[in-house]
Amino acid sequence: MSDKPVQHLYADELSHCYGCGRNNPHGLHVQSRWDGTEAKARFTPRPEHIAVPGYVYGGLLASLVDCHGVATAAAAAGMELAGDEPLGRFVTASLNVVFVKPTPLGVELELRARVTERRRRKLVVAVEILAEGEVRVRGEVVAAPMPTSMEMK
Amino acid sequence: MSDKPVQHLYADELSHCYGCGRNNPHGLHVQSRWDGTEAKARFTPRPEHIAVPGYVYGGLLASLVDCHGVATAAAAAGMELAGDEPLGRFVTASLNVVFVKPTPLGVELELRARVTERRRRKLVVAVEILAEGEVRVRGEVVAAPMPTSMEMK
Repeated sequence: MSDKPVQHLYADELSHCYGCGRNNPHGLHVQSRWDGTEAKARFTPRPEHIAVPGYVYGGLLASLVDCHGVATAAAAAGMELAGDEPLGRFVTASLNVVFVKPTPLGVELELRARVTERRRRKLVVAVEILAEGEVRVRGEVVAAPMPTSMEMK
Repeated sequence: MSDKPVQHLYADELSHCYGCGRNNPHGLHVQSRWDGTEAKARFTPRPEHIAVPGYVYGGLLASLVDCHGVATAAAAAGMELAGDEPLGRFVTASLNVVFVKPTPLGVELELRARVTERRRRKLVVAVEILAEGEVRVRGEVVAAPMPTSMEMK
C-alpha cells in the first residue's frame, strides 16, 4: 500500500480537479488515504467557505464528499497503490448529501469513506464528514470509471 | 416582483455564503431571478473549476444546485420580493445531484429551478443545469427554513 494520498496516484493529465488535483493551484487539494478498507482525509475549510456565520457552506461539503468518494472508488477498484502505475480515474455519476447537523466553521473536518455496493462497473461509496467528533454530513457517491469520450477534449 | 436577484433580498448578516453571498468577496456570487414560478440563473465557471481537462468540476455544479435551489425555496416561500423586508433564509437539508452528461468548461451555464413538493415546512426544489442547450445536471434540494439555533453563533 502506498503512503501517498490516492489523488497523487492519478495520472498527471487527470490531476487538475478543483477539489483534489495536485496540479490545480487554486483548488482545495483534498487528499484521501486508503488503508485497504476505508479512506480517510482531513480538511480545514477556509474562512470564506462560510454558509451563514459560524457554519460551513454546503457546497464545499458536497465537494469534499465528491472528491473523497471518487478517490475511495479509485483506490478500492485499483491496485495495491504500490507501484508507479497511475490509478484508474473515476468520475461521479451521482452525488447525494444529507446535512445531518450544521458543520461548524473554524475546525478541522474528518472524512471517512467505504465502498458499500458494486453495480457492474459502478461503485457506491458512503462518506461521512465529522466535526468535533460528531457526524455532520452523510454522503453517497456513485462513481464510474471515466468514459473514454472524456479523454478526448 | 423585485428586479433584484433573490440573494440580494437576504438579510445583510446572512449574506456571506460562499456560493451566493453578496458580502463574500471570495465567493461565486450566484444570482437567482424568480419570475413567480421558476428561478433562473446564469453562471460561467472559472478556468480553475475544472474536473478533468475540458469539463466542469462536479463539486462546483453541486454548489450551483445548492445555492440556486435554496434561493428558489426562499423566493417561493417568501413574499412578492417587492419590498425592503429581508427574505426568510432557507438552508439545505439534503442535496441530490445526477450528472446526466459531462458539462463543458468555458461556456456559460444556465440554471432553472422550480418547487416540486411542499413537505410541512420543507420545500423540495428541482434544479437543472444546461450547457449549450442540453441538460447536463439534474439536482434536487430539500430546503428548510433556517433553524433559530443557527442564528446564535
